[in-house]
Amino acid sequence: MSEHPGFTIWFTGLSGAGKTTISEIVAPALRERGLKIEVLDGDVVRTNLSKGLGFSKEDRDTNIRRIAFVADLLSRNGVGVITAAISPYAELRREARATMGERFIEVYVQASVEECAKRDTKGLYEKAFKGEIKEFTGVSDPYEVPEHAELIVDTEHETPEESAQKVIAFVEDKIGVAA
Amino acid sequence: MSEHPGFTIWFTGLSGAGKTTISEIVAPALRERGLKIEVLDGDVVRTNLSKGLGFSKEDRDTNIRRIAFVADLLSRNGVGVITAAISPYAELRREARATMGERFIEVYVQASVEECAKRDTKGLYEKAFKGEIKEFTGVSDPYEVPEHAELIVDTEHETPEESAQKVIAFVEDKIGVAA
Repeated sequence: MSEHPGFTIWFTGLSGAGKTTISEIVAPALRERGLKIEVLDGDVVRTNLSKGLGFSKEDRDTNIRRIAFVADLLSRNGVGVITAAISPYAELRREARATMGERFIEVYVQASVEECAKRDTKGLYEKAFKGEIKEFTGVSDPYEVPEHAELIVDTEHETPEESAQKVIAFVEDKIGVAA
Repeated sequence: MSEHPGFTIWFTGLSGAGKTTISEIVAPALRERGLKIEVLDGDVVRTNLSKGLGFSKEDRDTNIRRIAFVADLLSRNGVGVITAAISPYAELRREARATMGERFIEVYVQASVEECAKRDTKGLYEKAFKGEIKEFTGVSDPYEVPEHAELIVDTEHETPEESAQKVIAFVEDKIGVAA
């Protein structure tokens, strides 16, 4: 495996927008291109770094800061990191960008609340609408739309494969690798 | 910087035994040998990964598991990691070893409670003896001495420089790098 510059693909978007699905296509495709890739999925992180944290503003911020801390450690050592947490707050994404500088690639995974609720991959929206889950992003908690994302993928009008290809092409171009 | 196998130098020992001091000599020396090195010092980790955790058995275990999680991510990607947390429990060190396998280098930084209390680098032992700090390793909380450490450095009878040289020599031998 050859040396290459590290980077962090920072997916952000609502629950059910497709962050994990897309990252599961992007990760192996980038590995095939000889890149070292680590995925810090929301669930992986909540298990290994943030157990005990809830979904208050403060706990969400702490969770995102930890992901950024680990993504920075990895990416500054030549690893390509993919994060797939909701990361609803612009300020925290800005913080992560400030830490990682040019290594930071913000990808807004765009889908409306209505569309995500229709998919309801984990059955969470139904509970959120009934008030059984509090502080649910997009329903009872804010999601601040990215204003300066390097890339937007529109999962209401693209297949996961199409969205993933856009991300892969962006990285190929940035890092100078190809299939 | 050339590609090399990752590893984790897992310092363990009492507060004041010299873990951080030695790691501060080892880290730049290994970087000079062309290795990528990241230091996960106890304080760095408590700030960035484990804020809010206390010093109960459960919280200590969580802290150590997080360090091991991050050390594994880095070391499996060719980074040399140095951890310098007390890590008093054998079971948790065993867990970290099981995760990292051959990449794991346990270094027992040996110094008696009496010696560490005499140094009392951070003024903590005095407080612990007075009962002002509860659950203080070696005073009111257990420290389980490593039985299978790859390396023991005896900081009661060696200078930090001497201890550091032993660690550096071990890594040089293992990884096949030299000054």
